[in-house]
Amino acid sequence: MAATVAVDNLNPKVLKCEYAVRGEIVIHAQRLQQQLQTQPGSLPFDEILYCNIGNPQSLGQQPVTFFREVLALCDHPDLLKKEEIKTLFSADSISRAKQILALIPGRATGAYSHSQGIKGLRDAIASGIASRDGFPANADDIFLTDGASPGVHLMMQLLIRNEKDGILVPIPQYPLYSASIALHGGSLVPYYLNESTGWGLEISDVKKQLEDARSRGIDVRALVVINPGNPTGQVLAEENQYDIVKFCKNEGLVLLADEVYQENIYADNKKFHSFKKIVRSLGYGEDDLPLVSYQSVSKGYYGECGKRGGYMEITGFSAPVREQIYKIASVNLCSNITGQILASLVMNPPKASDESYASYKAEKDGILASLARRAKALEIAFSKLEGITCNKAEGAMYLFPQICLPQKAIEAAKAANKAPDAFYALRLLESTGIVVVPGSGFGQVPGTWHFRCTILPQEEKIPAIISRFTVFHETFMAEYRD
Amino acid sequence: MAATVAVDNLNPKVLKCEYAVRGEIVIHAQRLQQQLQTQPGSLPFDEILYCNIGNPQSLGQQPVTFFREVLALCDHPDLLKKEEIKTLFSADSISRAKQILALIPGRATGAYSHSQGIKGLRDAIASGIASRDGFPANADDIFLTDGASPGVHLMMQLLIRNEKDGILVPIPQYPLYSASIALHGGSLVPYYLNESTGWGLEISDVKKQLEDARSRGIDVRALVVINPGNPTGQVLAEENQYDIVKFCKNEGLVLLADEVYQENIYADNKKFHSFKKIVRSLGYGEDDLPLVSYQSVSKGYYGECGKRGGYMEITGFSAPVREQIYKIASVNLCSNITGQILASLVMNPPKASDESYASYKAEKDGILASLARRAKALEIAFSKLEGITCNKAEGAMYLFPQICLPQKAIEAAKAANKAPDAFYALRLLESTGIVVVPGSGFGQVPGTWHFRCTILPQEEKIPAIISRFTVFHETFMAEYRD
Repeated sequence: MAATVAVDNLNPKVLKCEYAVRGEIVIHAQRLQQQLQTQPGSLPFDEILYCNIGNPQSLGQQPVTFFREVLALCDHPDLLKKEEIKTLFSADSISRAKQILALIPGRATGAYSHSQGIKGLRDAIASGIASRDGFPANADDIFLTDGASPGVHLMMQLLIRNEKDGILVPIPQYPLYSASIALHGGSLVPYYLNESTGWGLEISDVKKQLEDARSRGIDVRALVVINPGNPTGQVLAEENQYDIVKFCKNEGLVLLADEVYQENIYADNKKFHSFKKIVRSLGYGEDDLPLVSYQSVSKGYYGECGKRGGYMEITGFSAPVREQIYKIASVNLCSNITGQILASLVMNPPKASDESYASYKAEKDGILASLARRAKALEIAFSKLEGITCNKAEGAMYLFPQICLPQKAIEAAKAANKAPDAFYALRLLESTGIVVVPGSGFGQVPGTWHFRCTILPQEEKIPAIISRFTVFHETFMAEYRD
Repeated sequence: MAATVAVDNLNPKVLKCEYAVRGEIVIHAQRLQQQLQTQPGSLPFDEILYCNIGNPQSLGQQPVTFFREVLALCDHPDLLKKEEIKTLFSADSISRAKQILALIPGRATGAYSHSQGIKGLRDAIASGIASRDGFPANADDIFLTDGASPGVHLMMQLLIRNEKDGILVPIPQYPLYSASIALHGGSLVPYYLNESTGWGLEISDVKKQLEDARSRGIDVRALVVINPGNPTGQVLAEENQYDIVKFCKNEGLVLLADEVYQENIYADNKKFHSFKKIVRSLGYGEDDLPLVSYQSVSKGYYGECGKRGGYMEITGFSAPVREQIYKIASVNLCSNITGQILASLVMNPPKASDESYASYKAEKDGILASLARRAKALEIAFSKLEGITCNKAEGAMYLFPQICLPQKAIEAAKAANKAPDAFYALRLLESTGIVVVPGSGFGQVPGTWHFRCTILPQEEKIPAIISRFTVFHETFMAEYRD
């Protein structure tokens, strides 16, 4: 008997799941990159520029020195016994590494930790959250995770029983949400962000979608909010956040707050407010609203994607429900300790009195200021192009321009069996080596077309990218203009 | 409206899932540990000995120096520019770190990698597999994962459509399998290992269970084999492995080979053979048998549980099925880079010509020889106790003694609403601070009772553990003897 594994007998939820951020265009880009290595000069560009994913260090961003010093010392604690390290490491990285090791039972950075993460590191994170928000935070509410994604999967797994359970998700959205809902067999209930008001979140639309879903028999269990927005880059106004929280409380929804871009704010008139702070500011306590807040070491000014560190802070769940959350976390034993340490560091960076502070601050401010300049330069450049309009990036790491494609291009895409924006993105890749993700990978108002482009290429490359993009776009429009 | 999340409206698959390795007894142990801190002297012991989980470094095992040197240098690559490191790091750790950084695009240890893991590290792992087996291995078949568990979940997610899909799992089993099957909504089809032949795997029983499941309408999709065994510690004979492979091919089953204890062999007459090698030795190629082999940095002599490194090697799957596996891996972006680097190191440790080799070999041999002595000492001690029989640990990190409990103890357990072996383990914990996992957490022949105890406490503690255990057991038996 031949082996019986074939696509038509796999889990249909897996088949249904899509993840455009690493989808067809990226796989094609990887092939082109191999071609550049094996046959240099065979393509009209000499490198692939991955603007498809928020992966700063892959495009040359340097890690923050203090964080890496501490990680190296924790990875090889024998170093702490040696005098010579004083010339190689900052004094506060040495003392911080010692503090962290003292928090780890047996100083064992190679041991599985508590399923929620090392208690002392969770204490440090809770203290960082409390300073950020001005409200207490509790180590027992923190679950350290390998990046933010496993925490999102965990909550979907917990809440979704079958396709009659719905999760409200913004459109456009980060496709982790649609993928996770599909993998767990639930229903994505879309609400649309308003592009004309800078991707505003309108409660009236959310309410309409909720009621519509309920009328179809969907038990809507949670609302996902991504703030700052991905792929849309907006930063929610505080008033808007109050409305969202009250709405969730009134409708009995879990609020899943994706706050991984909390340190990526570029607009002078915008400020990040955590939903935890908003909830507590309203005087809501543990019995009022189940809230999950996600944070990650992959974003911010640190951009340590490869370390897979992150946490979720859960409040407002009953003890028996928390036990179930703990049990799922336990099945995976624990998140990686390097990522756990880094999560505690980003929530407690050097203080003004520390030796590293000046260099730390210079690195942080340098990265954030440069990201803001890059966001602006790309926004201006995109906005100048025929048929393209582009909201500004108030935060996060992306621009999500709308592109008005000529009918002829739409027909050419149809002939090639591609979505029009995927057709555009593929042509862009093949002409310039620039990888963006078509809007159809995130969801968009039907009949509109977009692409997501990160603001992450190093600053000195931005002018060349803009000029390559501009030439491509003009050529494309010349070919397809109606 | 109050929030609507309660245990009775959670995903019933989550409620069904159990994971005893971190279950009730461990949670109770954590409470006792806190009590020891806040009220020293309030318990009849002064430390908790976690023998519930294969977590060597939590009990004092030291990490292998070479591996940690390389990790520290990769975490903070700026060190490689400094002359002073020559007095702090071995020459081959420096050259290895440089080699590894050269394999990482942009030398960026903080970037997301390819969804399967960094290509150069997968090449190194494939080369390590090829040396181990004497058959070629391919980097495209390697998926680096955060420990072995995520790879197990991935395959369960892929294969299980509904409760009519079954997975053959040994009983006793490592409860990751039952938990993962429960979470994905499939049916666990048990086959029993034969305790009287040293936990032998008998194809005739597997076949009987397969046929029985099929007669109940179950579509049995895969066979899980854990070799060396967990919790049972046996090492499969080569001939037995040939039979297993032929059986899977004949019956059209995917073979899921948990080989994470491949370097933990203590019996002189036993040797580890990977299923990949067995499959290729039979002349089977890509069209004959879908095989997944799991490896982890958490086990072996390295025991780096907290680093969450591991891989699965998949062979015998069609291209369209592999695309689905790749897609699921992509949704989680990538495994942590520290774990990826460590996985490449354990599959390519220092060679005889390297500066570190002598100290590396001394550390490795010291750990493995000590584990073998501990396994033997505990096996002898358990076997001496009234009503306890204990197979030897040929490999892995566990003993799984059978305990013949007096009827009176069974009744006392019933009165306390506990399984008899859980009752015994709880009493053991409360009397001695020793944490073991009841056999009921792994599955066992109905009416028999066991516990799993790791061989991991440091060697100098073993005599005291044996004497505390012996005193407890004698007292327990005196209390409950029929």
